[in-house]
Amino acid sequence: MPSKIPDGGQRGWIIPIGGAEEKENDPAILRRFVKLCGGLDADIVVIPTASRLRDTGERYEKLFRELGAGRAEQMDFDTRRDAEEDGRLERLAQATGIFLTGGNQLRITTLLGGTPIAKLIRARNAAGVHVAGTSAGAAVLSEHMIAFGEEGSSPRAGSVRLAPGLGLTNRFIIDQHFRQRDRFGRLSTALAFNPFAIGIGLDEDTAAFIGPDNELEVVGSGAVTVIDANGLQFSSMDQVEERQPVCLLGLTVHVLVAGATFNLHTRRASAGGLSPQKE
Amino acid sequence: MPSKIPDGGQRGWIIPIGGAEEKENDPAILRRFVKLCGGLDADIVVIPTASRLRDTGERYEKLFRELGAGRAEQMDFDTRRDAEEDGRLERLAQATGIFLTGGNQLRITTLLGGTPIAKLIRARNAAGVHVAGTSAGAAVLSEHMIAFGEEGSSPRAGSVRLAPGLGLTNRFIIDQHFRQRDRFGRLSTALAFNPFAIGIGLDEDTAAFIGPDNELEVVGSGAVTVIDANGLQFSSMDQVEERQPVCLLGLTVHVLVAGATFNLHTRRASAGGLSPQKE
Repeated sequence: MPSKIPDGGQRGWIIPIGGAEEKENDPAILRRFVKLCGGLDADIVVIPTASRLRDTGERYEKLFRELGAGRAEQMDFDTRRDAEEDGRLERLAQATGIFLTGGNQLRITTLLGGTPIAKLIRARNAAGVHVAGTSAGAAVLSEHMIAFGEEGSSPRAGSVRLAPGLGLTNRFIIDQHFRQRDRFGRLSTALAFNPFAIGIGLDEDTAAFIGPDNELEVVGSGAVTVIDANGLQFSSMDQVEERQPVCLLGLTVHVLVAGATFNLHTRRASAGGLSPQKE
Repeated sequence: MPSKIPDGGQRGWIIPIGGAEEKENDPAILRRFVKLCGGLDADIVVIPTASRLRDTGERYEKLFRELGAGRAEQMDFDTRRDAEEDGRLERLAQATGIFLTGGNQLRITTLLGGTPIAKLIRARNAAGVHVAGTSAGAAVLSEHMIAFGEEGSSPRAGSVRLAPGLGLTNRFIIDQHFRQRDRFGRLSTALAFNPFAIGIGLDEDTAAFIGPDNELEVVGSGAVTVIDANGLQFSSMDQVEERQPVCLLGLTVHVLVAGATFNLHTRRASAGGLSPQKE
């Protein structure tokens, strides 16, 4: 469950990124994250635990510093015991921003799930600290996470497996590399189980910056596909077999590009800065 | 433009199929087409012109006969002059069903577009003759046809090229091999130009049987994805550049499976035979 927001405070931003975000020429997403975290006053902790590559954490440390962050340090976890260690907890409690890298989302949840570190990430976010994640790091942000799934098919009963995520919010379910890996079917399937959540499909190099007011704004070169099952007339998920396609009637879909917004509370989409339609 | 339906008459069925329809074990789609065309009284003309394979026409002749069609014969076209020939026109005028095979939809439109044969197909359909097409043969059925397009991306301005089709109807735009080739983005892009039409994305081995009353019913093992842009709040198609993603707000999407229906006139979806949702 998401942590309670302290009276008079406001939640920090939650920033799922679709993976493969631009790092060299015009790193709009990472730059905005650094700015949000305080720029020169930023203190960003990078958690590279999802990744099995040695240099993932260092790479982001360097990137964030180049983008003007006052401080950026990685904090890796090899065992669940690491996630109870006082030194790490104290260090994380100072951060103004937390960044989860890509890799395998189940490495994050199996190592951190249920530990004091996971609890602290939720609590710090509720207290105003911004939490971003890319690819696997994006998937884990919400309460319900896509752990595995098939790509490139219509919604099918067995095409997606959910698992509990870090649980900063339960308002949405994230899917990343969205169009690059054709995940419309699996994200729709994830919603078909219980349509209360909103599906957020993030293209690569595209982020949803979700403010304390639950207004989502798109940054990056691709699109964010919002699947809103609130008006769902019918789902056959309760009666289909493993390999059968699922019947889903009445999904609302918005394809948002940079500058466009979606309010997770009112479920209203807006084109943002794009000039309003004339006809 | 679709031909006028004679007074007191009704249009024949229009049956786009997503390609790769089952031909051996349980050919539900082809069987239903034969039955619709009259079974033993059926006289089906197979047009294999989209295909460059020698045996495509023969294969369907044989299939339709095995499924109980009284008569099934192919009629191929090698030149535009063939499509003016009296013998062919007389033969086609007798058919109770017309079937267009897969291949390249531009072969059908470049060879038949604007010829007496194309006009006759429209007129016969308006007079009650059923017209089915699979893959490329499905794409050409409507007034606006997807000629080329990119797969696997979010809607992008340059991701689809439209061309005039055979024009049996202008109510919808067809895309075939829909989930198998990840065409959600390109079909949405096609609708973004002018949202009046309804997007029909057909999975392989899946058909939309569209009756004279414009009620579409799904037959086959996959899904039909209906994209209804009628409630579109905003499209940025008028202001984006070639490679940019298109912003589309307020699409309605239905994923229909066998037995489910969608009315192209009222734009209402129904789960059909599937038991109604209890909650």
